Amino acid sequence: MKFEKLVGERFKERPSDCVIDSHALMIRGGYMKYVGNGIYSSLLPLKRITRKIEQIIREEMDGIDGQEVQFPVVMPASLWQESGRYESIGSELVRFNDRNKNPLVLGMTHEEAAVQLVRDYAQSYSKYPFMVYQIQTKFRDEARPRGGLIRVREFTMKDAYSFHTSQSDLGDYYDRCHHAYERIFTRVGIPEVISVASDSGMMGGNISHEFMLMTSIGEDSIVICRGCGYKANMEAADSVIYNERDTVSNKITLVHTPNIHTIEEVCGFFNITKEKSCKAVAYQRNSDDSYIVVLIRGDLDVNETKLTNHLGFDIHAATIVDECELAAGYIGPYLLNNNYSVLYDKSLENTNNLVCGGNVIEYHYTGLDIQRDIGNVMYHDFVKIQDGGICPCCGKESISISRGIEVGNIFQLGTKYTKSMNMTYIDKEGTIQYPIMGCYGIGIGRLAASVCEVHHDDFGPIWPMAIAPWQVHICAVRSDDNAVKECANNLYEELLSSGIEVIYDDRAVSAGVMFSDADLLGVPLRIIVSPRNLKESCCEIVSRDKTILIKVALDLTNEKILELV
Amino acid sequence: MKFEKLVGERFKERPSDCVIDSHALMIRGGYMKYVGNGIYSSLLPLKRITRKIEQIIREEMDGIDGQEVQFPVVMPASLWQESGRYESIGSELVRFNDRNKNPLVLGMTHEEAAVQLVRDYAQSYSKYPFMVYQIQTKFRDEARPRGGLIRVREFTMKDAYSFHTSQSDLGDYYDRCHHAYERIFTRVGIPEVISVASDSGMMGGNISHEFMLMTSIGEDSIVICRGCGYKANMEAADSVIYNERDTVSNKITLVHTPNIHTIEEVCGFFNITKEKSCKAVAYQRNSDDSYIVVLIRGDLDVNETKLTNHLGFDIHAATIVDECELAAGYIGPYLLNNNYSVLYDKSLENTNNLVCGGNVIEYHYTGLDIQRDIGNVMYHDFVKIQDGGICPCCGKESISISRGIEVGNIFQLGTKYTKSMNMTYIDKEGTIQYPIMGCYGIGIGRLAASVCEVHHDDFGPIWPMAIAPWQVHICAVRSDDNAVKECANNLYEELLSSGIEVIYDDRAVSAGVMFSDADLLGVPLRIIVSPRNLKESCCEIVSRDKTILIKVALDLTNEKILELV
Repeated sequence: MKFEKLVGERFKERPSDCVIDSHALMIRGGYMKYVGNGIYSSLLPLKRITRKIEQIIREEMDGIDGQEVQFPVVMPASLWQESGRYESIGSELVRFNDRNKNPLVLGMTHEEAAVQLVRDYAQSYSKYPFMVYQIQTKFRDEARPRGGLIRVREFTMKDAYSFHTSQSDLGDYYDRCHHAYERIFTRVGIPEVISVASDSGMMGGNISHEFMLMTSIGEDSIVICRGCGYKANMEAADSVIYNERDTVSNKITLVHTPNIHTIEEVCGFFNITKEKSCKAVAYQRNSDDSYIVVLIRGDLDVNETKLTNHLGFDIHAATIVDECELAAGYIGPYLLNNNYSVLYDKSLENTNNLVCGGNVIEYHYTGLDIQRDIGNVMYHDFVKIQDGGICPCCGKESISISRGIEVGNIFQLGTKYTKSMNMTYIDKEGTIQYPIMGCYGIGIGRLAASVCEVHHDDFGPIWPMAIAPWQVHICAVRSDDNAVKECANNLYEELLSSGIEVIYDDRAVSAGVMFSDADLLGVPLRIIVSPRNLKESCCEIVSRDKTILIKVALDLTNEKILELV
Repeated sequence: MKFEKLVGERFKERPSDCVIDSHALMIRGGYMKYVGNGIYSSLLPLKRITRKIEQIIREEMDGIDGQEVQFPVVMPASLWQESGRYESIGSELVRFNDRNKNPLVLGMTHEEAAVQLVRDYAQSYSKYPFMVYQIQTKFRDEARPRGGLIRVREFTMKDAYSFHTSQSDLGDYYDRCHHAYERIFTRVGIPEVISVASDSGMMGGNISHEFMLMTSIGEDSIVICRGCGYKANMEAADSVIYNERDTVSNKITLVHTPNIHTIEEVCGFFNITKEKSCKAVAYQRNSDDSYIVVLIRGDLDVNETKLTNHLGFDIHAATIVDECELAAGYIGPYLLNNNYSVLYDKSLENTNNLVCGGNVIEYHYTGLDIQRDIGNVMYHDFVKIQDGGICPCCGKESISISRGIEVGNIFQLGTKYTKSMNMTYIDKEGTIQYPIMGCYGIGIGRLAASVCEVHHDDFGPIWPMAIAPWQVHICAVRSDDNAVKECANNLYEELLSSGIEVIYDDRAVSAGVMFSDADLLGVPLRIIVSPRNLKESCCEIVSRDKTILIKVALDLTNEKILELV
């Protein structure tokens, strides 16, 4: 391919709307173009990269007995009504009507389609286990697309669905898929990806893992234990909190606390530590604005994902209006109007002598003993785990929090979809059973962007050979020089016929322009043909990552390149 | 791949809702599954076929300097508002709003996206010509999906867009693409595809061709001249009609014609030929139900596609209600209430002494002379060309009409999109110009189904080697026989390591079941390992199309297969 024919703009200035490097470089390098909020077109270099990533994934999926299929992008709503997700998923699921007013949805995940595809086929235990996967466009109406290809609304994804007759068979397959994922991330050039325990969210099921590329620009928070190596998404990590009750529970007493608002002020006023306070955080349900009050120990914060998963519906921070009778800033559990859903975090278990809001403006209670004053309540885990917290695995105070990009995920779904969609099989004993499912996703574009995040410098991406848009970039510096032109042409033809993927720049531009464009394209090996080199009958081979910089005799160049590729 | 692991149902009965063979066989053979009206999932055999077709197309598009890109499935409505098609296209374009009430569309074609992708890049003549293409899912809300993959709502398409600085450059590229298409159809196994002149419809532009597979189940009507070889879609073929005026124009006279309804009855009553009658056909505009009256010679019919293209909006056959003052069955051009749009077909040019409706129930006029009685009117071509009609190319009465499936199309678009979307470049003289576009489409699924239509028998598809889901199908008949099992296993491993794509059936089923399943899978070469064959230390190689049926010594099988593949 001639560089001058490559469609796409390349430019030097970092676009002002690009926060992360991969986004900026992929816009600057003519890899992709903005079409609308969270929607991009891909140009040839990115298309070549993603096709190579897709092929690696395909090989690994075939290697674990996957069968490539294709589900529809547009599906009848009835399929999602069967599983119950038509109602339970929020506005990220696009719903619309066709010309005959039949409701349709845009696929954002395909558990329903997978069950529909195989439920007539797999009615006997002898058909199991099996896995089907596809590589396909999806649309998820994200509230806040960002980071270029890291979080978009339209994206290409490999999604796989496995079906099993026992939990142990699913467990075995889940492990095989985990290994296949490790191979995929290694092959595309980011072996540093780690897997962490994750929350299953809207997918249902219980055991799940996310594959995380640890980077400061990641949008997920990962809990890692410096002691035992425990790793989990913050949303999925159980908090461990120890309390000790005072020997005597004081009487509960309403105290006037004028101008005392924050937890710090409350603790200062009463001369107590935050651990001895009970904080109330108010939310509202998105659908009807009803109030939910979460009570938690004063030194801790609520992890809203944990809370949402517990509730099973979407919420937002409460706006406290006069009519609602909540005393903003002074909410507490004692004598709280029972019009509200009240939830207790497990950090309040085994406590007494707490200070809490008095449910009257400028009043607090002291001496709260939940067990005595409220009665038996259920405690749940809503705590946002903090750096230095206690590891739920080894029990030591060795938790650190880092940020990561989720580049893949695997879920054990159980029978959530097979039961709701009535997919059954007859087991060996002739009994009707529900198959057990697993599902396994990788976002192709996000993976490409993640590789770019890890492998780039200020001048452009440094693509690993396995997914590079081309393998070799020939720069004919001073192509107006006939000897240069001829030599570069010959090299180009020779490499092509050796099966090498070559991009060839013979434009009449300065070496500076040529090299900065080549840097943006990030091809791993560069051959420089120039009048100076030709005087020595050689050319330069330079690797994009600068680890290779050699002069090679012209007649040995092809051979050397084959060796390096 | 082991046959027993292949996900998908295979069965003998032709599904009652399948009208055409390819549809029936691809459902019966576990290639695809119905999900909703005009929406299917593909299973592994079809996915393998379409991936091979896509690769052939990709090679041919790369061969004519195409650059693979990817446009979004979901696009902002604003892009389609720029071109004007957001308003002009009917309900086949899916429109919906996102969570923030921004209007979006589902891509059914990507001229707008192509212009948006390249218009910032291609601002100088030196960037031209270039072509970008994609292979991607599209959704078109067809009113009547039918024929399995022949007409669906969701489909995968290769669509290409080329940009040029002169009509002659577009013409040259158009020809190159025409040749590439011929190579594609030949490579996938249907070299009999012909190209015919076509109508550009909603695409705009002027010159266009459709690639047609001639078959009785086709939904397009193709005009072919038995004399000069002229070929065109019926919608695009100009009609040629000769009239001769009588020397004397009689006076126009209203005549009572009780119980005279049809053209035949009218001609019988007045003792004239149909050529001497003027028929009125009434339509209504879809958007507002306003009436359009088309006048045409009594022996001819209206081609509604020609009419729609002339009007630029969608219509349906009129329902004549009392309030509209049209005299159903007696409509004529003379003294017709001028509330209606009236159009004259060119078959009425140079006529007189016509009989036409009297615009009063049970009355007709005789002696109509349009020029004298109506005045100067514009004549347009709305005629449905008939078998035996006059060829617009050679002028002989040698038109025949055949049916075909459109498997591809190419259009010269002119500046329709570049002008409306303000894409410009500076030419050599420094003048601002609009580039000229071409576009080129092939439906992947329809092409697969078309190959199946041509290549099948009662028992299943007969896939050409180039696109077959596998190259070789091993049938181990009586796999409970250890010798059979071992021999078949060895052959399987040997062929796999020779790089052959093998599907291997070692199920404990009868030879009948095994062979009928193999027929449905349509793999070109079959190896039969059976106890009987093993007695002679050989196996049978049978081709699916029955042209090959040989016994081969076991140790030569691998070699023979490599030769045949």
